[in-house]
Amino acid sequence: MFNDFKVLDEGPVYVQLKKYVQDMIVKGHLLEHQKLPSTRELSKLLTVSRNTVLNAYAELEQDGIIYAVKGKGHFVGKVTTLKTSSIIEMDWKKRLNDTTLLADEIDLIRQDIHWQKGMISFISIAPEEKLFDVENFKRAFLTRMSIEGDIVLNYGYAKGYKPLIDYLLGYMEMKGVDISNKDIMITNGFTEGLDILLSSFAKKSGRVLCENPTHHAALKLFRMHGLDIHGIDMSDDGVDIGQVEQDLAEKQFDFAYFIPSYHNPTGIVTSSEKRNAIFQLFSKYQIPIVEDGFNEELRYTGSHLAPLIAFSGSGNNIVYIGSFSKILFPGLRVGWILADKELISYLESMKRARTIHTSTLDQAVLYQYLQDGYFEKYLKKARSVYKKKYELARQACMQYIPFSRITGDGGLHLFIELEEGVDARILLEKCYNKGVVFYPGDVFFTNGRGNNTFRLGFSRLSDEDIIRGIQIIGDTLKNDMRG
Amino acid sequence: MFNDFKVLDEGPVYVQLKKYVQDMIVKGHLLEHQKLPSTRELSKLLTVSRNTVLNAYAELEQDGIIYAVKGKGHFVGKVTTLKTSSIIEMDWKKRLNDTTLLADEIDLIRQDIHWQKGMISFISIAPEEKLFDVENFKRAFLTRMSIEGDIVLNYGYAKGYKPLIDYLLGYMEMKGVDISNKDIMITNGFTEGLDILLSSFAKKSGRVLCENPTHHAALKLFRMHGLDIHGIDMSDDGVDIGQVEQDLAEKQFDFAYFIPSYHNPTGIVTSSEKRNAIFQLFSKYQIPIVEDGFNEELRYTGSHLAPLIAFSGSGNNIVYIGSFSKILFPGLRVGWILADKELISYLESMKRARTIHTSTLDQAVLYQYLQDGYFEKYLKKARSVYKKKYELARQACMQYIPFSRITGDGGLHLFIELEEGVDARILLEKCYNKGVVFYPGDVFFTNGRGNNTFRLGFSRLSDEDIIRGIQIIGDTLKNDMRG
Repeated sequence: MFNDFKVLDEGPVYVQLKKYVQDMIVKGHLLEHQKLPSTRELSKLLTVSRNTVLNAYAELEQDGIIYAVKGKGHFVGKVTTLKTSSIIEMDWKKRLNDTTLLADEIDLIRQDIHWQKGMISFISIAPEEKLFDVENFKRAFLTRMSIEGDIVLNYGYAKGYKPLIDYLLGYMEMKGVDISNKDIMITNGFTEGLDILLSSFAKKSGRVLCENPTHHAALKLFRMHGLDIHGIDMSDDGVDIGQVEQDLAEKQFDFAYFIPSYHNPTGIVTSSEKRNAIFQLFSKYQIPIVEDGFNEELRYTGSHLAPLIAFSGSGNNIVYIGSFSKILFPGLRVGWILADKELISYLESMKRARTIHTSTLDQAVLYQYLQDGYFEKYLKKARSVYKKKYELARQACMQYIPFSRITGDGGLHLFIELEEGVDARILLEKCYNKGVVFYPGDVFFTNGRGNNTFRLGFSRLSDEDIIRGIQIIGDTLKNDMRG
Repeated sequence: MFNDFKVLDEGPVYVQLKKYVQDMIVKGHLLEHQKLPSTRELSKLLTVSRNTVLNAYAELEQDGIIYAVKGKGHFVGKVTTLKTSSIIEMDWKKRLNDTTLLADEIDLIRQDIHWQKGMISFISIAPEEKLFDVENFKRAFLTRMSIEGDIVLNYGYAKGYKPLIDYLLGYMEMKGVDISNKDIMITNGFTEGLDILLSSFAKKSGRVLCENPTHHAALKLFRMHGLDIHGIDMSDDGVDIGQVEQDLAEKQFDFAYFIPSYHNPTGIVTSSEKRNAIFQLFSKYQIPIVEDGFNEELRYTGSHLAPLIAFSGSGNNIVYIGSFSKILFPGLRVGWILADKELISYLESMKRARTIHTSTLDQAVLYQYLQDGYFEKYLKKARSVYKKKYELARQACMQYIPFSRITGDGGLHLFIELEEGVDARILLEKCYNKGVVFYPGDVFFTNGRGNNTFRLGFSRLSDEDIIRGIQIIGDTLKNDMRG
């Protein structure tokens, strides 16, 4: 007894001892009312200081796990005996609803090819960790904590952390948005923003219009919310406006979802003319648009393009969801919804009911980081690194891959369309055997198409791996995909 | 032009200048292709360094907002003119579903009495900010960031941050839980945990059984999920077992929700015997229990009580939701669901679809804080402070308030039941006029009762205010509530 206690490097010794004793009691090795060794004995036995034992016993006593009898020492307290007779095995799957089973079924992570270490993976479009500006992030944290550490650590508001909201309102105003009748609610990233919207919108036609292909996380949520998804083909400057026009004339839609700024997965930037056309059309039909501001900060060339919500002026028909996740720190779950004031007020009630509020710590540190100008500096650095990788990847694709179309006007990935009939999943299988993996494009399509497409994320790869990987994909296409 | 530019204390000057110029362009004060002042001119005009102007222009150029012509200077780029003709005013309320309108309607924050500064408020049960262990929290942050800052800031896993999950599994094992067939998923606090469960459970009877009164955030979610809520009255050691027995025999339930450890709002701790009885009954009827581990760390007296999930042994019929929010840092939104492994795997897909994952920063810093033993130390301090306040508040209630029942075995609040017919909302109105507010109890009841009850949160009040406030409530009850 007690002789298997070992002092570890982590955490105070008295806490370790406390846990050790508690564990023995809970597991039944020490019995109710059994006398414990005196503090003197135990300190000698374990070669720890007597104070350590005193502290451990004091806490165990406070927790009601042991009790002291004056002049007699410490004893094991009343422990609920948990030798229960009923071991219940429920079949949980049968107790879950269809949405949950669907979420599981269409969960891409579970279907992912399990790539191994040493492989060249074009799967991720997460930012490169080595670029992270950890030092300035620490600085921002310490600054904010010294200003109002107690507020950062206590409850906040469902709508979000006020300084961050104000900063982002200013940020969006800089993009040409009339914020006079609008407000911002902070969410746990883009994904929660979209989910809250989908959970709040009334289902009338039950139909959503979006680009085809589109962001798979959005597709997943549309499916989970039981929406009928209506995809519009894309040309190189955005959706096919003629098709949109025709569909709006023929069908009812509850809302549209667009990623005009840097489209996922195609990387297409919707032109200013098309933005205007989209805005006019949906205004005419009084159908709201949910605009996904994805990665608009990561364009490397071209003139400034106003987001769709800027076109609405003092109107309220566009709901914008923003996030810095793909550029800054995805580990911080912070996104925002910019929309009509009244709408935000309703969404706020939903947010409060569902998660109370987004981490104040995340919001406060992000605010300080932005406010101190670190974001601009970081963006500059990140842009120059990613731009080089982008150009390299694009050039390699031109050189090695026999594509029928390549898109991607910036950002952290390219999208490749192969000849009709070439199956990207078979290509993936063959490349996998050669140590290269990428994202099959079919998962982004609304209608089961896209078998001949794939996405290449290059943000986390070295220059050498980008070239070598693309070369391998190209060679495989040329040599192993016939017959 | 340019003469209203003012250098502020916050952030680099070149960023401020960049924003200023961008703002003028976006607002149309500078026109397309208009020449900008040379960097030399502008630096002189604004009395900022030339480098500042150079940096600002360089960034504006990179953003595509201005362009440079060699030997000629900088010019305003192509700006989308946003003088849109369609200003759309949608009636958003009509486009929202009933759940959202209900969430708004039952949002307590909106109904709250708007207390003013200087008032004595017994409304909050959030922890006292002055107690926060900000220094050790900073330490934990810096430690974790130096170990793996880049990982903390990048994407994590839907299930949560592995070191934290492992820590919490050990923590729950210490409470007597058999974790062999169980797993933990980290959530954005208790609330998201419950919401994900409610969103995942299949609706069969559509009926939930719970204590009456119970946690209002849970009640709100039950209502939003369209559940039929069946409340069981409470005696001083937990629910009325006879009533539970009868109800289970007569009706179908999808699941039960219990707060055995420190019940909100009554503060009742369910006895070991009742825990066992509850477990046996629900096992017999094969109805799962969702156990809310609310504040079990904040009991000041009594022996260790095993949570309900410990009774299930290697069975899987109890789902436990935990959180340190009320004790540690509510601003960090971290809670956890401990349950059957297979169930956790399904919940993980839901979590991934809805919020991707909980802030890695929050999880990682919390982990380090726990791991370094700061939690135990803090808990010790917090317990001793809150215990004093608790005893003071309880004593003051005994002395001044003519209650018919008072409950609360620890924690941060007491629950008062007045004589039948005494309306706590009228009492609140009268106390409000004297500068004292508290939480009316009716909001916690499943069936519209509880008009004669209220909750007193004392965690954030000084000793003097606790006594004075309770005295005022007592006096008001004795003097102003007749006739």
